Amino acid sequence: MTVEEKLKTSGLSLPPAPMPVGAYVPAVLAGKLLFTSGQLPLQDGVLRYSGKIGVDLTEKEGCEAARLCAINALAAAGSVVELSRLKRVLKVTGYVNCLPEFTAHAKVINGASELLAPLFSGGHARAAVGVASLPLGAAVELEMIIEIE
Amino acid sequence: MTVEEKLKTSGLSLPPAPMPVGAYVPAVLAGKLLFTSGQLPLQDGVLRYSGKIGVDLTEKEGCEAARLCAINALAAAGSVVELSRLKRVLKVTGYVNCLPEFTAHAKVINGASELLAPLFSGGHARAAVGVASLPLGAAVELEMIIEIE
Amino acid sequence: MTVEEKLKTSGLSLPPAPMPVGAYVPAVLAGKLLFTSGQLPLQDGVLRYSGKIGVDLTEKEGCEAARLCAINALAAAGSVVELSRLKRVLKVTGYVNCLPEFTAHAKVINGASELLAPLFSGGHARAAVGVASLPLGAAVELEMIIEIE
Repeated sequence: MTVEEKLKTSGLSLPPAPMPVGAYVPAVLAGKLLFTSGQLPLQDGVLRYSGKIGVDLTEKEGCEAARLCAINALAAAGSVVELSRLKRVLKVTGYVNCLPEFTAHAKVINGASELLAPLFSGGHARAAVGVASLPLGAAVELEMIIEIE
Repeated sequence: MTVEEKLKTSGLSLPPAPMPVGAYVPAVLAGKLLFTSGQLPLQDGVLRYSGKIGVDLTEKEGCEAARLCAINALAAAGSVVELSRLKRVLKVTGYVNCLPEFTAHAKVINGASELLAPLFSGGHARAAVGVASLPLGAAVELEMIIEIE
Repeated sequence: MTVEEKLKTSGLSLPPAPMPVGAYVPAVLAGKLLFTSGQLPLQDGVLRYSGKIGVDLTEKEGCEAARLCAINALAAAGSVVELSRLKRVLKVTGYVNCLPEFTAHAKVINGASELLAPLFSGGHARAAVGVASLPLGAAVELEMIIEIE
């Protein structure tokens, strides 16, 4: 099954790639590597999860925010190549908007990783870090490097 | 026009690549990908923009800092390949030194993106995040992945 | 000498790749590029350096934390390719857990760069930033992109 078919099987369909919030593009392709822009938890053009995880949002909501960012990253990828050409997510970088005391970044970004796991074989490398703040006050920002067939 | 010619047309000339502030090099080339180190808003060896954007510096100054980082990133690239070989900036990552309440990261990093837009066709992917602090107290740090001909 | 031989000469042997703390893998290989996951200063499965550098830990301890992260990143790389195939570390990104006033990120991440310098010729690009917090409360997180023969 292609990624597109697997998404359908999971009852998921990708939205249009979110509009960039600045002077850049959603994703670029160079050879077999696709780089997405940092994706925010936007849904239908509205920021669905904002604020600091652990204060304004629970870890579970943070997880949902990360999942939504991952969906948007796949949509961004789909804006430059056919989804059937996505071979593997190589790297996910997840930025968590949180306080200096926060330590559950891995749980939050698992919201993205667990969406991706059944879609691609082989697993992805990942970094998750806690940041002071994010564009528009988003709770999570997430970017991917994807291998293309 | 090559990037170099476009820079000249814009009245811009690249400075020498800034000296790294640690045990690393300004940029490396691997196949068709060039990775720059994180660039600070240094000018003639002096940190031109320091402190937190929104507190010590205005958004407009943050924008200028991001633009200066982008110029330094191109200079760093030029230290390992001829500028005429720069095909496209694939990805920009911009780190903004700011408070937890800050939300205008996109406007700040647009200072870099708007410098790049007329120099390369096709646009670049981008992530912008707010960080707790940066080396030397810099206001912005910015790195690029560039495709080489 | 290969990286493995150089490590032995330095009296260093790599531990097994640390277990990921979430739903991802230690490293992935795509063509000639290897991406490691963000590595924490874990030793024998225990977080050896936690807290904020400049508050809970000295800069020197931060340096040791960065060095340990770099060892773990090489171990992560070694979990997907023979170490003898590591040609060059292209890029290091170091995240430093610290307060908004901290400015000595470069010194901290030099702990990683100075470990790498004698192992690979040509030097690496690097970014070092200060973050609000890191997974498990780690003092440093570090990731690498490595060129493979």
